[in-house]
Amino acid sequence: MALMEITVVPLGAGTSLSKYVAKAIRALESVPEVDYELTSMGTIVLGRMDRLLEAAQKMHQAVLDAGAQRVETVIRIDDRRDKTVTLASKLAAVRQELGDRD
Amino acid sequence: MALMEITVVPLGAGTSLSKYVAKAIRALESVPEVDYELTSMGTIVLGRMDRLLEAAQKMHQAVLDAGAQRVETVIRIDDRRDKTVTLASKLAAVRQELGDRD
Amino acid sequence: MALMEITVVPLGAGTSLSKYVAKAIRALESVPEVDYELTSMGTIVLGRMDRLLEAAQKMHQAVLDAGAQRVETVIRIDDRRDKTVTLASKLAAVRQELGDRD
Amino acid sequence: MALMEITVVPLGAGTSLSKYVAKAIRALESVPEVDYELTSMGTIVLGRMDRLLEAAQKMHQAVLDAGAQRVETVIRIDDRRDKTVTLASKLAAVRQELGDRD
Repeated sequence: MALMEITVVPLGAGTSLSKYVAKAIRALESVPEVDYELTSMGTIVLGRMDRLLEAAQKMHQAVLDAGAQRVETVIRIDDRRDKTVTLASKLAAVRQELGDRD
Repeated sequence: MALMEITVVPLGAGTSLSKYVAKAIRALESVPEVDYELTSMGTIVLGRMDRLLEAAQKMHQAVLDAGAQRVETVIRIDDRRDKTVTLASKLAAVRQELGDRD
Repeated sequence: MALMEITVVPLGAGTSLSKYVAKAIRALESVPEVDYELTSMGTIVLGRMDRLLEAAQKMHQAVLDAGAQRVETVIRIDDRRDKTVTLASKLAAVRQELGDRD
Repeated sequence: MALMEITVVPLGAGTSLSKYVAKAIRALESVPEVDYELTSMGTIVLGRMDRLLEAAQKMHQAVLDAGAQRVETVIRIDDRRDKTVTLASKLAAVRQELGDRD
Protein backbone atom coordinates (compact mmCIF):
# COMPACT_ATOMS: atom_id res chain seq x y z
CA MET A 1 0.00 0.00 0.00
CA ALA A 2 1.23 3.47 -0.85
CA LEU A 3 0.13 6.97 0.08
CA MET A 4 -0.71 9.52 -2.62
CA GLU A 5 -1.44 13.18 -2.22
CA ILE A 6 -3.26 14.69 -5.15
CA THR A 7 -4.58 18.08 -6.11
CA VAL A 8 -6.46 18.72 -9.35
CA VAL A 9 -6.79 22.40 -10.26
CA PRO A 10 -8.72 23.85 -13.21
CA LEU A 11 -7.05 26.90 -14.78
CA GLY A 12 -9.18 29.65 -16.26
CA ALA A 13 -12.19 28.56 -14.23
CA GLY A 14 -12.30 31.34 -11.67
CA THR A 15 -10.82 31.36 -8.20
CA SER A 16 -13.53 29.39 -6.35
CA LEU A 17 -12.67 25.80 -7.00
CA SER A 18 -14.58 23.82 -4.38
CA LYS A 19 -17.19 22.76 -6.95
CA TYR A 20 -14.45 21.11 -9.01
CA VAL A 21 -12.81 19.54 -5.99
CA ALA A 22 -16.15 18.00 -5.06
CA LYS A 23 -16.46 16.46 -8.54
CA ALA A 24 -12.98 14.99 -8.17
CA ILE A 25 -13.87 13.52 -4.77
CA ARG A 26 -17.01 11.94 -6.21
CA ALA A 27 -14.84 10.31 -8.87
CA LEU A 28 -12.39 9.12 -6.24
CA GLU A 29 -15.21 7.50 -4.30
CA SER A 30 -15.96 5.29 -7.31
CA VAL A 31 -12.51 3.66 -7.07
CA PRO A 32 -12.51 0.40 -5.06
CA GLU A 33 -9.96 -0.53 -2.39
CA VAL A 34 -8.78 2.96 -1.48
CA ASP A 35 -9.20 5.10 1.63
CA TYR A 36 -8.86 8.85 1.58
CA GLU A 37 -8.91 11.98 3.66
CA LEU A 38 -9.26 15.63 2.70
CA THR A 39 -6.79 18.28 3.83
CA SER A 40 -6.88 22.01 3.21
CA MET A 41 -4.25 21.54 0.48
CA GLY A 42 -5.39 18.37 -1.29
CA THR A 43 -6.58 14.80 -0.92
CA ILE A 44 -4.53 11.98 0.60
CA VAL A 45 -5.33 8.51 -0.71
CA LEU A 46 -4.12 5.12 0.57
CA GLY A 47 -4.12 2.10 -1.71
CA ARG A 48 -2.18 -0.11 -4.08
CA MET A 49 -0.18 1.78 -6.71
CA ASP A 50 -2.47 0.70 -9.58
CA ARG A 51 -5.55 1.88 -7.67
CA LEU A 52 -3.88 5.19 -6.84
CA LEU A 53 -3.16 5.89 -10.50
CA GLU A 54 -6.71 4.83 -11.42
CA ALA A 55 -7.94 7.35 -8.86
CA ALA A 56 -5.64 10.04 -10.27
CA GLN A 57 -6.94 9.48 -13.79
CA LYS A 58 -10.60 9.56 -12.70
CA MET A 59 -10.17 12.69 -10.58
CA HIS A 60 -8.34 14.50 -13.36
CA GLN A 61 -10.97 13.46 -15.90
CA ALA A 62 -13.81 14.54 -13.60
CA VAL A 63 -12.51 18.11 -13.55
CA LEU A 64 -12.19 18.14 -17.34
CA ASP A 65 -15.72 16.74 -17.61
CA ALA A 66 -16.94 19.55 -15.35
CA GLY A 67 -15.96 21.98 -18.09
CA ALA A 68 -12.37 22.98 -17.38
CA GLN A 69 -10.37 23.77 -20.52
CA ARG A 70 -7.04 23.32 -18.79
CA VAL A 71 -6.25 21.23 -15.72
CA GLU A 72 -3.10 21.02 -13.63
CA THR A 73 -2.78 17.89 -11.50
CA VAL A 74 -0.04 17.54 -8.89
CA ILE A 75 0.61 14.10 -7.39
CA ARG A 76 3.10 12.98 -4.76
CA ILE A 77 3.37 9.27 -3.95
CA ASP A 78 5.18 7.79 -0.97
CA ASP A 79 5.60 4.05 -1.39
CA ARG A 80 7.55 2.02 1.11
CA ARG A 81 8.10 -1.71 1.02
CA ASP A 82 9.89 -2.11 4.31
CA LYS A 83 6.87 -1.28 6.46
CA THR A 84 3.07 -1.19 6.40
CA VAL A 85 1.75 2.35 6.19
CA THR A 86 -1.72 3.61 7.08
CA LEU A 87 -3.29 7.05 6.86
CA ALA A 88 -2.42 7.56 10.53
CA SER A 89 0.90 5.78 11.01
CA LYS A 90 3.29 8.33 9.52
CA LEU A 91 1.73 11.07 11.57
CA ALA A 92 1.90 8.97 14.72
CA ALA A 93 5.63 8.38 14.20
CA VAL A 94 6.32 12.11 13.90
CA ARG A 95 4.15 12.93 16.91
CA GLN A 96 5.94 10.35 19.00
CA GLU A 97 9.29 11.81 17.96
CA LEU A 98 8.10 15.31 18.86
CA GLY A 99 6.73 14.09 22.18
CA ASP A 100 9.95 12.33 23.04
CA ARG A 101 11.73 15.65 23.01
CA ASP A 102 9.35 17.59 25.11
CA MET B 1 -2.39 35.09 4.37
CA ALA B 2 -1.45 32.15 2.19
CA LEU B 3 -1.38 28.40 2.70
CA MET B 4 1.81 26.42 2.15
CA GLU B 5 2.25 22.69 2.12
CA ILE B 6 5.83 21.59 2.64
CA THR B 7 7.70 18.33 2.85
CA VAL B 8 11.43 18.13 3.52
CA VAL B 9 12.98 14.75 2.76
CA PRO B 10 16.60 13.70 3.41
CA LEU B 11 18.03 11.40 0.73
CA GLY B 12 20.53 8.74 1.67
CA ALA B 13 19.44 8.85 5.30
CA GLY B 14 17.56 5.58 5.50
CA THR B 15 13.84 5.02 5.12
CA SER B 16 12.66 6.06 8.58
CA LEU B 17 12.41 9.80 8.41
CA SER B 18 10.26 10.81 11.39
CA LYS B 19 13.33 11.97 13.32
CA TYR B 20 14.09 14.46 10.54
CA VAL B 21 10.48 15.56 10.23
CA ALA B 22 10.45 16.30 13.97
CA LYS B 23 13.56 18.51 13.60
CA ALA B 24 11.84 20.40 10.79
CA ILE B 25 8.72 20.91 12.91
CA ARG B 26 10.82 22.25 15.78
CA ALA B 27 12.35 24.76 13.36
CA LEU B 28 8.88 25.71 12.09
CA GLU B 29 7.75 26.38 15.64
CA SER B 30 10.43 29.06 15.97
CA VAL B 31 8.83 31.13 13.19
CA PRO B 32 6.42 33.80 14.46
CA GLU B 33 2.95 34.52 13.07
CA VAL B 34 2.29 31.15 11.45
CA ASP B 35 -0.13 28.34 12.26
CA TYR B 36 0.42 24.80 11.09
CA GLU B 37 -1.01 21.32 11.02
CA LEU B 38 0.61 17.98 10.25
CA THR B 39 -0.83 15.57 7.70
CA SER B 40 0.40 12.11 6.76
CA MET B 41 2.02 13.61 3.64
CA GLY B 42 3.51 16.86 4.91
CA THR B 43 2.98 20.01 6.92
CA ILE B 44 0.43 22.71 6.08
CA VAL B 45 1.36 26.21 7.22
CA LEU B 46 -0.77 29.37 7.23
CA GLY B 47 0.86 32.79 7.25
CA ARG B 48 2.09 35.75 5.25
CA MET B 49 4.20 34.86 2.22
CA ASP B 50 7.45 36.14 3.78
CA ARG B 51 6.85 34.10 6.94
CA LEU B 52 6.07 31.00 4.87
CA LEU B 53 9.36 31.26 3.01
CA GLU B 54 11.20 31.91 6.27
CA ALA B 55 9.62 28.71 7.59
CA ALA B 56 10.62 26.81 4.46
CA GLN B 57 14.23 27.92 4.79
CA LYS B 58 14.41 27.01 8.48
CA MET B 59 12.79 23.60 8.00
CA HIS B 60 15.10 22.79 5.09
CA GLN B 61 18.15 23.92 7.06
CA ALA B 62 17.11 21.91 10.13
CA VAL B 63 17.20 18.68 8.12
CA LEU B 64 20.64 19.54 6.74
CA ASP B 65 21.81 20.37 10.27
CA ALA B 66 20.55 16.99 11.41
CA GLY B 67 23.18 15.42 9.19
CA ALA B 68 21.51 14.87 5.81
CA GLN B 69 23.92 15.14 2.89
CA ARG B 70 21.15 15.72 0.37
CA VAL B 71 17.70 17.18 0.98
CA GLU B 72 14.70 17.42 -1.32
CA THR B 73 12.10 20.01 -0.33
CA VAL B 74 8.72 20.20 -2.05
CA ILE B 75 6.56 23.28 -1.46
CA ARG B 76 3.13 24.17 -2.77
CA ILE B 77 1.70 27.61 -1.98
CA ASP B 78 -1.91 28.65 -2.49
CA ASP B 79 -2.25 32.41 -2.17
CA ARG B 80 -5.54 34.14 -2.80
CA ARG B 81 -6.23 37.82 -2.51
CA ASP B 82 -9.96 37.77 -3.15
CA LYS B 83 -10.85 35.99 0.09
CA THR B 84 -9.55 35.29 3.58
CA VAL B 85 -8.36 31.73 3.96
CA THR B 86 -7.87 29.75 7.19
CA LEU B 87 -6.58 26.25 7.80
CA ALA B 88 -10.21 25.08 7.94
CA SER B 89 -12.02 27.21 5.39
CA LYS B 90 -10.97 25.49 2.16
CA LEU B 91 -11.93 22.14 3.57
CA ALA B 92 -15.27 23.47 4.79
CA ALA B 93 -16.09 24.77 1.30
CA VAL B 94 -15.44 21.35 -0.27
CA ARG B 95 -17.40 19.54 2.43
CA GLN B 96 -20.35 21.85 1.93
CA GLU B 97 -20.21 21.25 -1.81
CA LEU B 98 -20.11 17.48 -1.23
CA GLY B 99 -22.95 17.69 1.30
CA ASP B 100 -25.09 19.72 -1.06
CA ARG B 101 -25.09 16.84 -3.47
CA ASP B 102 -25.88 14.06 -1.05
CA MET C 1 -2.04 15.28 -25.45
CA ALA C 2 -0.87 16.39 -22.05
CA LEU C 3 2.52 17.21 -20.57
CA MET C 4 3.75 15.42 -17.44
CA GLU C 5 6.80 16.16 -15.40
CA ILE C 6 7.90 13.29 -13.21
CA THR C 7 10.66 12.61 -10.75
CA VAL C 8 11.11 9.26 -9.01
CA VAL C 9 13.43 9.34 -6.01
CA PRO C 10 14.57 6.36 -3.91
CA LEU C 11 14.94 7.14 -0.21
CA GLY C 12 17.58 5.40 1.84
CA ALA C 13 19.56 4.54 -1.27
CA GLY C 14 22.44 6.97 -0.92
CA THR C 15 22.78 10.40 -2.47
CA SER C 16 23.90 9.40 -5.98
CA LEU C 17 20.71 8.58 -7.79
CA SER C 18 21.61 8.65 -11.49
CA LYS C 19 21.63 4.83 -11.64
CA TYR C 20 17.99 4.81 -10.51
CA VAL C 21 17.02 7.61 -12.85
CA ALA C 22 18.51 5.63 -15.74
CA LYS C 23 16.38 2.59 -14.81
CA ALA C 24 13.29 4.79 -14.77
CA ILE C 25 14.16 6.21 -18.21
CA ARG C 26 14.61 2.70 -19.60
CA ALA C 27 11.13 1.85 -18.32
CA LEU C 28 9.72 5.03 -19.85
CA GLU C 29 11.20 4.08 -23.21
CA SER C 30 9.09 0.91 -23.20
CA VAL C 31 5.86 2.95 -23.21
CA PRO C 32 4.43 3.52 -26.71
CA GLU C 33 3.15 6.86 -28.04
CA VAL C 34 5.06 9.17 -25.73
CA ASP C 35 7.91 11.63 -26.28
CA TYR C 36 10.16 12.77 -23.50
CA GLU C 37 13.04 15.02 -22.59
CA LEU C 38 15.33 15.05 -19.57
CA THR C 39 15.92 18.15 -17.48
CA SER C 40 18.22 18.62 -14.51
CA MET C 41 15.19 18.33 -12.21
CA GLY C 42 13.17 15.51 -13.78
CA THR C 43 11.70 14.08 -16.94
CA ILE C 44 9.07 15.78 -19.09
CA VAL C 45 6.78 13.43 -21.02
CA LEU C 46 4.24 14.25 -23.74
CA GLY C 47 1.37 11.89 -24.46
CA ARG C 48 -2.24 10.94 -23.84
CA MET C 49 -3.25 10.91 -20.18
CA ASP C 50 -3.53 7.10 -20.03
CA ARG C 51 -0.05 6.70 -21.51
CA LEU C 52 1.38 9.24 -19.08
CA LEU C 53 0.02 7.34 -16.10
CA GLU C 54 1.26 4.06 -17.59
CA ALA C 55 4.69 5.67 -17.83
CA ALA C 56 4.48 6.91 -14.24
CA GLN C 57 3.63 3.43 -12.96
CA LYS C 58 6.46 1.79 -14.93
CA MET C 59 9.05 4.37 -13.88
CA HIS C 60 8.03 4.10 -10.23
CA GLN C 61 8.12 0.29 -10.38
CA ALA C 62 11.52 0.30 -12.08
CA VAL C 63 13.07 2.13 -9.13
CA LEU C 64 11.49 -0.31 -6.68
CA ASP C 65 12.75 -3.21 -8.80
CA ALA C 66 16.24 -1.71 -8.67
CA GLY C 67 16.22 -2.35 -4.94
CA ALA C 68 14.81 0.80 -3.33
CA GLN C 69 12.87 0.12 -0.14
CA ARG C 70 11.05 3.45 -0.27
CA VAL C 71 10.28 5.57 -3.31
CA GLU C 72 8.88 9.08 -3.56
CA THR C 73 7.38 9.99 -6.92
CA VAL C 74 6.34 13.55 -7.75
CA ILE C 75 4.18 14.14 -10.83
CA ARG C 76 2.79 17.33 -12.31
CA ILE C 77 0.45 17.13 -15.29
CA ASP C 78 -0.60 20.05 -17.48
CA ASP C 79 -3.52 19.06 -19.68
CA ARG C 80 -5.20 21.59 -21.92
CA ARG C 81 -8.07 20.91 -24.27
CA ASP C 82 -8.28 24.32 -25.90
CA LYS C 83 -4.97 24.05 -27.73
CA THR C 84 -2.48 21.50 -29.02
CA VAL C 85 0.66 21.38 -26.92
CA THR C 86 4.10 20.03 -27.86
CA LEU C 87 7.31 19.70 -25.89
CA ALA C 88 8.45 22.98 -27.46
CA SER C 89 5.30 25.08 -27.76
CA LYS C 90 4.90 26.27 -24.16
CA LEU C 91 8.49 27.37 -24.07
CA ALA C 92 8.16 29.15 -27.40
CA ALA C 93 5.16 31.13 -26.11
CA VAL C 94 7.08 32.34 -23.07
CA ARG C 95 10.15 33.20 -25.13
CA GLN C 96 8.05 35.19 -27.55
CA GLU C 97 6.46 37.07 -24.65
CA LEU C 98 9.89 37.82 -23.20
CA GLY C 99 11.22 38.88 -26.58
CA ASP C 100 8.29 41.18 -27.18
CA ARG C 101 9.33 43.20 -24.20
CA ASP C 102 12.97 43.54 -24.96
CA MET D 1 24.45 25.76 -4.38
CA ALA D 2 21.07 24.11 -4.77
CA LEU D 3 18.74 23.55 -7.69
CA MET D 4 15.14 24.77 -7.55
CA GLU D 5 12.36 24.09 -9.98
CA ILE D 6 9.51 26.55 -9.75
CA THR D 7 6.21 27.09 -11.46
CA VAL D 8 3.91 30.01 -10.62
CA VAL D 9 0.37 29.63 -11.96
CA PRO D 10 -2.43 32.21 -11.74
CA LEU D 11 -5.88 30.69 -11.19
CA GLY D 12 -8.92 32.33 -12.70
CA ALA D 13 -6.80 34.18 -15.24
CA GLY D 14 -7.67 32.23 -18.36
CA THR D 15 -5.78 29.35 -19.90
CA SER D 16 -3.04 31.27 -21.72
CA LEU D 17 -0.46 31.95 -19.09
CA SER D 18 2.72 32.85 -20.99
CA LYS D 19 2.22 36.55 -20.20
CA TYR D 20 2.35 35.75 -16.48
CA VAL D 21 5.31 33.42 -16.86
CA ALA D 22 7.19 36.19 -18.63
CA LYS D 23 6.52 38.58 -15.70
CA ALA D 24 7.85 35.95 -13.31
CA ILE D 25 11.00 35.49 -15.40
CA ARG D 26 11.59 39.25 -15.45
CA ALA D 27 11.38 39.22 -11.65
CA LEU D 28 13.78 36.27 -11.48
CA GLU D 29 16.28 38.18 -13.60
CA SER D 30 16.44 40.88 -10.92
CA VAL D 31 17.82 38.40 -8.38
CA PRO D 32 21.65 38.38 -8.17
CA GLU D 33 23.83 35.28 -8.11
CA VAL D 34 21.42 32.84 -9.73
CA ASP D 35 21.42 31.07 -13.09
CA TYR D 36 18.28 29.71 -14.65
CA GLU D 37 16.86 27.82 -17.57
CA LEU D 38 13.32 27.49 -18.86
CA THR D 39 11.70 24.13 -19.52
CA SER D 40 8.26 23.40 -20.92
CA MET D 41 7.04 22.68 -17.38
CA GLY D 42 8.70 25.39 -15.31
CA THR D 43 11.89 27.25 -14.52
CA ILE D 44 15.02 25.67 -13.06
CA VAL D 45 17.18 27.98 -10.96
CA LEU D 46 20.65 27.38 -9.55
CA GLY D 47 21.89 29.35 -6.55
CA ARG D 48 22.32 29.53 -2.81
CA MET D 49 19.23 28.58 -0.81
CA ASP D 50 18.56 32.16 0.35
CA ARG D 51 18.76 33.45 -3.22
CA LEU D 52 16.44 30.69 -4.43
CA LEU D 53 13.79 31.64 -1.88
CA GLU D 54 14.24 35.32 -2.73
CA ALA D 55 13.63 34.38 -6.37
CA ALA D 56 10.55 32.35 -5.41
CA GLN D 57 9.07 35.27 -3.49
CA LYS D 58 9.72 37.75 -6.32
CA MET D 59 8.32 35.45 -9.02
CA HIS D 60 5.20 34.73 -6.96
CA GLN D 61 4.70 38.43 -6.23
CA ALA D 62 5.18 39.37 -9.90
CA VAL D 63 2.23 37.20 -10.90
CA LEU D 64 0.06 38.74 -8.18
CA ASP D 65 1.17 42.21 -9.30
CA ALA D 66 0.16 41.31 -12.85
CA GLY D 67 -3.41 41.09 -11.63
CA ALA D 68 -3.95 37.47 -10.58
CA GLN D 69 -6.41 37.09 -7.69
CA ARG D 70 -5.16 33.64 -6.78
CA VAL D 71 -1.74 32.14 -7.42
CA GLU D 72 -0.49 28.59 -6.97
CA THR D 73 3.28 28.23 -6.73
CA VAL D 74 4.97 24.83 -6.79
CA ILE D 75 8.63 24.59 -5.79
CA ARG D 76 10.97 21.63 -5.63
CA ILE D 77 14.48 22.11 -4.25
CA ASP D 78 17.33 19.62 -4.53
CA ASP D 79 20.17 20.58 -2.23
CA ARG D 80 23.21 18.40 -1.85
CA ARG D 81 26.22 19.09 0.30
CA ASP D 82 28.36 16.15 -0.72
CA LYS D 83 28.95 17.38 -4.28
CA THR D 84 28.94 20.52 -6.41
CA VAL D 85 25.94 20.66 -8.71
CA THR D 86 25.50 22.73 -11.87
CA LEU D 87 22.56 23.11 -14.22
CA ALA D 88 24.17 20.50 -16.47
CA SER D 89 25.83 18.06 -14.10
CA LYS D 90 22.81 16.03 -12.95
CA LEU D 91 21.73 15.53 -16.52
CA ALA D 92 25.24 14.51 -17.55
CA ALA D 93 25.33 11.85 -14.83
CA VAL D 94 22.06 10.32 -16.02
CA ARG D 95 23.13 10.44 -19.67
CA GLN D 96 26.39 8.72 -18.84
CA GLU D 97 24.50 6.03 -16.95
CA LEU D 98 22.15 5.54 -19.90
CA GLY D 99 25.05 5.49 -22.34
CA ASP D 100 26.93 2.94 -20.29
CA ARG D 101 24.14 0.49 -20.88
CA ASP D 102 23.76 0.92 -24.58
